[in-house]
Amino acid sequence: MASRKEVAALAGVSEATVSRVMNNVGPIKEQTRRKVLEAAERLGYHLNAIASSFAKGRSGNVGVVLPHVPKVRLFSTFYFSEILSGIGEAVQEAGMGLLLLYREPGMEYDYLSLFRTSRIDACLVLGATSLPQEERSITRMAEAEVPFYVVDQRYEDRRIPSVLADHELGSYLAAKHLLDQGLRRIGFLNGTDYYSNSRDRLSGYRRALQEAGIAFDETLLFEGNYSRKSGIEAAAAVLRSLDRLDAVACSNDRMAIGLIQGIKEAGIAVPGRLPVIGYDDSDAAAFIDPPLSTVRVPFYEMGRLAAEQVMQELARESAEGEPDGGGDRVRMLPTSLAIRQSSLTTKGELNR
Amino acid sequence: MASRKEVAALAGVSEATVSRVMNNVGPIKEQTRRKVLEAAERLGYHLNAIASSFAKGRSGNVGVVLPHVPKVRLFSTFYFSEILSGIGEAVQEAGMGLLLLYREPGMEYDYLSLFRTSRIDACLVLGATSLPQEERSITRMAEAEVPFYVVDQRYEDRRIPSVLADHELGSYLAAKHLLDQGLRRIGFLNGTDYYSNSRDRLSGYRRALQEAGIAFDETLLFEGNYSRKSGIEAAAAVLRSLDRLDAVACSNDRMAIGLIQGIKEAGIAVPGRLPVIGYDDSDAAAFIDPPLSTVRVPFYEMGRLAAEQVMQELARESAEGEPDGGGDRVRMLPTSLAIRQSSLTTKGELNR
Repeated sequence: MASRKEVAALAGVSEATVSRVMNNVGPIKEQTRRKVLEAAERLGYHLNAIASSFAKGRSGNVGVVLPHVPKVRLFSTFYFSEILSGIGEAVQEAGMGLLLLYREPGMEYDYLSLFRTSRIDACLVLGATSLPQEERSITRMAEAEVPFYVVDQRYEDRRIPSVLADHELGSYLAAKHLLDQGLRRIGFLNGTDYYSNSRDRLSGYRRALQEAGIAFDETLLFEGNYSRKSGIEAAAAVLRSLDRLDAVACSNDRMAIGLIQGIKEAGIAVPGRLPVIGYDDSDAAAFIDPPLSTVRVPFYEMGRLAAEQVMQELARESAEGEPDGGGDRVRMLPTSLAIRQSSLTTKGELNR
Repeated sequence: MASRKEVAALAGVSEATVSRVMNNVGPIKEQTRRKVLEAAERLGYHLNAIASSFAKGRSGNVGVVLPHVPKVRLFSTFYFSEILSGIGEAVQEAGMGLLLLYREPGMEYDYLSLFRTSRIDACLVLGATSLPQEERSITRMAEAEVPFYVVDQRYEDRRIPSVLADHELGSYLAAKHLLDQGLRRIGFLNGTDYYSNSRDRLSGYRRALQEAGIAFDETLLFEGNYSRKSGIEAAAAVLRSLDRLDAVACSNDRMAIGLIQGIKEAGIAVPGRLPVIGYDDSDAAAFIDPPLSTVRVPFYEMGRLAAEQVMQELARESAEGEPDGGGDRVRMLPTSLAIRQSSLTTKGELNR
């Protein structure tokens, strides 16, 4: 069988490019891809991704490490299922396996042993927080220069690569949408602040208030844990503050759906008396009554991009014998509004 | 460190039982579990499931092989996400990893190479069909006596172990629910018949008709592929047969939701003119308008049970050095009705 070197020479590209094309990893110009595939075909060069991984003492697996939360069916949440679908698609295309592993939230986790024991060749971390034990565990991967990406969580340490969505923008747009309708006293039901994405949402909310010349009022902040149950619980606090609220923005759809359920049960009309906007554009958003206005987040694309990035680094490392390391490896995808009925009001219905 | 043999002697149980307790695999009497844990504690015996797997040249992974369907986000479907959540929970408790792999539907798949190369120690097959290539690939695992289970698909070959839901019963109950309201001409929108679960649903539907003394009418059968889109497409055929239909039973919620959407767009009232019942009790069922009557299927429990069964066989094989092999290893979980509004009618509204 021809060698990778011969294919590279015939196609007029680097050996690394041959690897990337043959492993179907990373963005490659269509023209380059065709040149490589033609050269490979002429020389009878084939690559079985898994077989070649094994030959190198590799597992052929991309590890995905998830928080284990008792009683929560992670795959059944829109957030994780979409990210995992994106990861799964990219991993499938590359002919690799996806090894799911659970960690205890808030605890140290020995990612490096997964690499040492060849259980995984590359790692994606989902649902990570800024809690010190978690950040420390992740930092160790950066120091060891193994191929990994964190999804939807950023750290100050710029050696930690991540794929993010622009939650500052999403939350800004949601609050601005309410403010633009003349609503002024906007409550904000946010998730726990050990997620950078919660902190980013708070920043976006504050920026929208500031632009509208409205003072930030801490007493209009409510906290949940991104579950529907915590949204129902938040309804009690929202109802107690009802005479000081024109609308509520929520940090995800599940909390918004719980909140709407709770305030509707108390006889308060949504959006009539209290417009509500969610965040995520989950499956349920279009189905509930009233249909939920929300912020669209490209979770599937985030998962796909993170998997492509990490496999691209793996291929580069295989080809060049050294990790990427250099450069800022933070990728940010945009968010946008998806307005339905729950956030829309007419002046006449407002009680201000 | 004490040996497993010493723990077994002190607890008065077999070494296999010690393994099962320490690996947290399979059903164990609480009293036995306590005896083993106390003996282990007294003797300072610890077991790290993954470490012990590696010591035996094992991967510590349960493989889950899924069909790859382009453009379908498998994790985002209620069916797969629930089964995977159940599998994930059991695998997490046992300290093992879950290796997701994709196969091409309808093609041969080399499951045994996953065992030979130590990528997995046990295997679960999801979304399998009765197509000959698929059955042949799965039969090879039975012949090789490796630990595996098929989920929600049964084969005539009794050496193939499976965890099933009683879809014959579920579909019987759905049709009977419509018949009990005096409706007689029941359409049936089923999925592809290369799934045993589709064939079982057809049997249940036919049994309900027979009990009600109604002749089976093949022209009232409609076919989809379990997608919402195929439900919308089926609406056209249902509308063409409308003057011969009192109600429609569907083989899953997504097809039912698509069907309802299609017939409502044609101005036909559901349930007023045409009661519809779905199947699965997915998240969306309670949210749509009208709320969907459906059949509840314990998908999460099926996934969990399949994972527990296969890990129990793995533990037994480890402990006793030989596979289980014997006995009928088909587990069937019950289904039940979840009646909401889409299937309910009053005599006055019927057009018969």
